[in-house]
Amino acid sequence: MIVKKGCFISIEGTEGVGKSTNVAFIRQFVADKGISLRLTREPGGTPLAEEIRELLLKPREEIVSDDAEILLVFAARAQHVDRVIKPALANGEWILSDRFTDATFAYQGAGRGISWDRIQQLEQYVLADLRPDLTILLDLPVEVGMARVMQRGAPDRFEQEKLAFFDKVRQGYHRRLRAEPDRFALIDATQSLDHVQQQIAQALTEKLGLV
Amino acid sequence: MIVKKGCFISIEGTEGVGKSTNVAFIRQFVADKGISLRLTREPGGTPLAEEIRELLLKPREEIVSDDAEILLVFAARAQHVDRVIKPALANGEWILSDRFTDATFAYQGAGRGISWDRIQQLEQYVLADLRPDLTILLDLPVEVGMARVMQRGAPDRFEQEKLAFFDKVRQGYHRRLRAEPDRFALIDATQSLDHVQQQIAQALTEKLGLV
Ligand SMILES: Nc1ncnc2c1ncn2[C@@H]1O[C@H](COP(=O)(O)OP(=O)(O)OP(=O)(O)O)[C@@H](O)[C@H]1O
Ligand SMILES: Nc1ncnc2c1ncn2[C@@H]1O[C@H](COP(=O)(O)OP(=O)(O)OP(=O)(O)O)[C@@H](O)[C@H]1O
Ligand SMILES: [Mg+2]
Ligand SMILES: [Mg+2]
Repeated sequence: MIVKKGCFISIEGTEGVGKSTNVAFIRQFVADKGISLRLTREPGGTPLAEEIRELLLKPREEIVSDDAEILLVFAARAQHVDRVIKPALANGEWILSDRFTDATFAYQGAGRGISWDRIQQLEQYVLADLRPDLTILLDLPVEVGMARVMQRGAPDRFEQEKLAFFDKVRQGYHRRLRAEPDRFALIDATQSLDHVQQQIAQALTEKLGLV
Repeated sequence: MIVKKGCFISIEGTEGVGKSTNVAFIRQFVADKGISLRLTREPGGTPLAEEIRELLLKPREEIVSDDAEILLVFAARAQHVDRVIKPALANGEWILSDRFTDATFAYQGAGRGISWDRIQQLEQYVLADLRPDLTILLDLPVEVGMARVMQRGAPDRFEQEKLAFFDKVRQGYHRRLRAEPDRFALIDATQSLDHVQQQIAQALTEKLGLV
């Protein structure tokens, strides 16, 4: 096939839904179509943005104000968009980000309680009309995802939150889906990995016209 | 005298105008009036905000996007305002900050070229109507200030800028002064320290009604 322009995909969902697991599958799937996919993540994706990620995730005594948290998230995103995502798209590349702005609406919005309107102000400030072409939303009851990630080391500042927080985050993702249904592919992540991947493949094929 | 409410003072100016030098003088001057003054600075003023300051000042290979820089500045400010300045003022305290939002208009606005309008959006987002009661602006030709600070160690990411940058920054401060003249005391910092401090004392007395 002939790829005429860059393509921006994001993958989203609460803790342990399988985002990182499926990133490699997606890269292989599009590679089989002759497309090289660049992988990135948020918060992060550049050295400075990764340093901001550290500030965000590090457990700390100090109470972090909601405004400081969301401004750090968008500072990292501004750097990532300016230095990585926009140049890649302008260059006709395909790029997949493990989380993007929907995560901010879900975690800082639905989770922390920052109003949709305030997040949209920052989204407008940093992104103007830049949106992913496709967002894969992996959906799972939060207890199932937490059980899957329990094996890992000491919890970061977000993983220390209670189940009720992640339940709000999950609802936040659903609200984003309802607002922009065409951009999303909703995948039931309770299924076996095989089934999840079949559905991801189908979404990539249908939504991005891959053949 | 009877102090009825908190008071918020900022001190501003380009590199080496004497901000840090005069902070101690101001504290002593108001102490003589029976007022205890809390000292703080920007970017910084809380552990997290100081970590953000490190990210901002550290020289780095990576080009820092204007948006990332200003969002980091406001993230630090949001934390500083939420955890330090607002609680102090609500508690009736006096607080003096070595730099505040005027520095963002001067450095990121006039210096980097971010539009006044975009900075005002973030100012509105983070501060709403919070402003210093008095801003002491120390004014000096930039070469004089740079010569004064030359003695210090390796330059930070801002100190690496050229004179022309700081000249724009100085003009940015003047633009802020013209926009809100009542809030400012403009001090000619080419004068001897004694004269500078006489004028600071006069501004504190007149503008804040100290007796
Ligand atoms: N469909 C699935 N069924 C069962 N286990 C799965 C499935 N998908 C992923 N897992 C397992 O769940 C765990 C978490 O997966 P992964 O790290 O990919 O999630 P994540 O969404 O990236 O998590 P985080 O939000 O913490 O980054 C891993 O051990 C992975 O092997
Ligand atoms: N009026 C003055 N005349 C001569 N030297 C001065 C005067 N005021 C301050 N200095 C000297 O200038 C140098 C810089 O002063 P200071 O560190 O207070 O500036 P600053 O505005 O805090 O700088 P920076 O922007 O780097 O924080 C110091 O060595 C200080 O002693
Ligand atoms: Mg992951
Ligand atoms: Mg100083």
